Amino acid sequence: MAEDETPIRFGIMGCAEIARKMSRAIHLSPNSTLVAISSRSIEKAKQFSIKNKLSENVKIYGSYDELLDDPLVDAVYMPLPTTLHLKWAVMAAKKHKHLLLEKPTALDVKVFDEMLEACESNGVQFMDASMWYHHPRTAIMKDLLSNSELFGRVKAIHSSSSYCGTQQFLENDIRVKPDLDSLGALGDTGWYCIGAILWAMNQKLPTTVTALPNTQQNSAGVILSCSASLHWQEEGTIATFYSSIISHETMELAVCGSNGTLHVKDFIIPYEESKATFSFTSGAKFVDLHIGWNVKPREVEVDSRLPQEAMMVKEFSGLVKGIKDGRLDPDMKWARTSRCTQLVLDAVKNSIDNDCKAVQM
Amino acid sequence: MAEDETPIRFGIMGCAEIARKMSRAIHLSPNSTLVAISSRSIEKAKQFSIKNKLSENVKIYGSYDELLDDPLVDAVYMPLPTTLHLKWAVMAAKKHKHLLLEKPTALDVKVFDEMLEACESNGVQFMDASMWYHHPRTAIMKDLLSNSELFGRVKAIHSSSSYCGTQQFLENDIRVKPDLDSLGALGDTGWYCIGAILWAMNQKLPTTVTALPNTQQNSAGVILSCSASLHWQEEGTIATFYSSIISHETMELAVCGSNGTLHVKDFIIPYEESKATFSFTSGAKFVDLHIGWNVKPREVEVDSRLPQEAMMVKEFSGLVKGIKDGRLDPDMKWARTSRCTQLVLDAVKNSIDNDCKAVQM
Repeated sequence: MAEDETPIRFGIMGCAEIARKMSRAIHLSPNSTLVAISSRSIEKAKQFSIKNKLSENVKIYGSYDELLDDPLVDAVYMPLPTTLHLKWAVMAAKKHKHLLLEKPTALDVKVFDEMLEACESNGVQFMDASMWYHHPRTAIMKDLLSNSELFGRVKAIHSSSSYCGTQQFLENDIRVKPDLDSLGALGDTGWYCIGAILWAMNQKLPTTVTALPNTQQNSAGVILSCSASLHWQEEGTIATFYSSIISHETMELAVCGSNGTLHVKDFIIPYEESKATFSFTSGAKFVDLHIGWNVKPREVEVDSRLPQEAMMVKEFSGLVKGIKDGRLDPDMKWARTSRCTQLVLDAVKNSIDNDCKAVQM
Repeated sequence: MAEDETPIRFGIMGCAEIARKMSRAIHLSPNSTLVAISSRSIEKAKQFSIKNKLSENVKIYGSYDELLDDPLVDAVYMPLPTTLHLKWAVMAAKKHKHLLLEKPTALDVKVFDEMLEACESNGVQFMDASMWYHHPRTAIMKDLLSNSELFGRVKAIHSSSSYCGTQQFLENDIRVKPDLDSLGALGDTGWYCIGAILWAMNQKLPTTVTALPNTQQNSAGVILSCSASLHWQEEGTIATFYSSIISHETMELAVCGSNGTLHVKDFIIPYEESKATFSFTSGAKFVDLHIGWNVKPREVEVDSRLPQEAMMVKEFSGLVKGIKDGRLDPDMKWARTSRCTQLVLDAVKNSIDNDCKAVQM
């Protein structure tokens, strides 16, 4: 049927730097098309259109309301500052626009639940824009972690996500402004660490979350770097992470199991777009005399036909398509994943604000 | 001078499994020779001699006292259970035997200081048998970490050291017996994690040490796995580690700096004896659109002419030679390194025993 091939029509709300990558992703995804962009400043939106060589058919709006009122827009990608998510996500849901929301989803889970309630009551699909879940490498890594023989039970996890903000960035970016993104590094790079740890634990919440004492904040109190530990009492599993916007670039996940170990150094954004690697070791022992190992890590290479962000858009648009066609209800899996991450993020923030007190979940 | 070529004459006190590797190392080291072995059981010592094809010139003693009374023994390698270190290390020092002591050095720093005092007052060289410090890779990694441009300041460190003890091991090995090695995994694999973290921090002690809540103990209370965080207040640096004898084999060190990142996955015992690798990244940034990185980690390969344990013996014997020849006093650098590790290990143990309370150092 021709109907089945109609692409999902996207509007972008906010012309942030990340929207450049996402406008390309919407273009590359086979079941999506970009139909409108909006900014509070029509000039900024026009410049964005020119810089990214958008088609002349892409409408340019000087306000978010106009975009949300456009009946030709099925779904919105929203890279607004976190503080603005509640207002505009709820507004989008009320206008029956499906919502692909940039992370961190909200300042806290209470706000998240308000947005989610709006999505649910209006029957719109929700997904946060964590791209790495959609890379084919992620599914292959998950298969290995789920293999009881090769990997066994998860015993320890460590994740690190950091980059080195320039002086300009550290003075002006929305991520260091308390009125725009008061979660700072925790909401930005910490979101990925927490997400990766929960991903390895199949979204099971930890028993206890404890911030470590290295939190650094700017003069306005916004977090520039922090660490935390997560503990699952029943499993005896421990996870730690380091999140920073004032360190060298890292995107690491190391998972140690009872029978195997997995390492990936670029889990959020692979070094290269067309392929990605990770390493896996299973059944490692010492050779006689303990002068070496019986196995070395296996480097696994995974090809990627589409960039991970285009895979994300494709997945999201497929769900939206099902809802539009009346075949599917909104898939709550992605909201549940975001909510778990948000809950742990809140606990880390709570622990930071209370002198690294352990927070029971 | 012929005198200068006389090798240092070693005795081994205790025929533990690790002594097999060390008898080979003493043989491979160009300035050392094995002249005697001892065990509480003469039969065990004889079997050790046969199994390891020792020369018939190597004397076999059925008691430690006999070995220590042998005037032809210059130095002893002591792989005894930790609980026995104090008695026999002090005895060895009093008999003017230089001391290469297996780790963990002691049950606590008070005991360590007693042993060290005996070494100092008798003018004997002390070194703990942590072999990885002596691999040429370690020096090359240190050079990179010390490069202010390529690496910058240390911001975060994570280390993991684990292996999967067999049922037999977990029931019978000295490392799970409270009367022999009550530090369990912390003293065994944790010693390396703490050592590696302190190595990266140039032996500066942390401000605070806090155990994480995942300690697992056997029915006798011996630690089978644990984790901790170390914090340096002035630097804002955080370190975490995972130590276990009930997980898959890991030997990891990841150091994130302000300008670079270093990773090594086999820092304690390299995968292969003749060469070892690590990876290093410096100045990593995203490419335009954030769809990849400008650099990938550089894999650095380091050849090793001698196994690291033979390098250790060579270093130790060189120091002993200098003392014997009257050219040198005992070099206290190695004792200081061991003592720092012991102090942090004590703090972790203290925190574990006090419900993960932060321990100020």
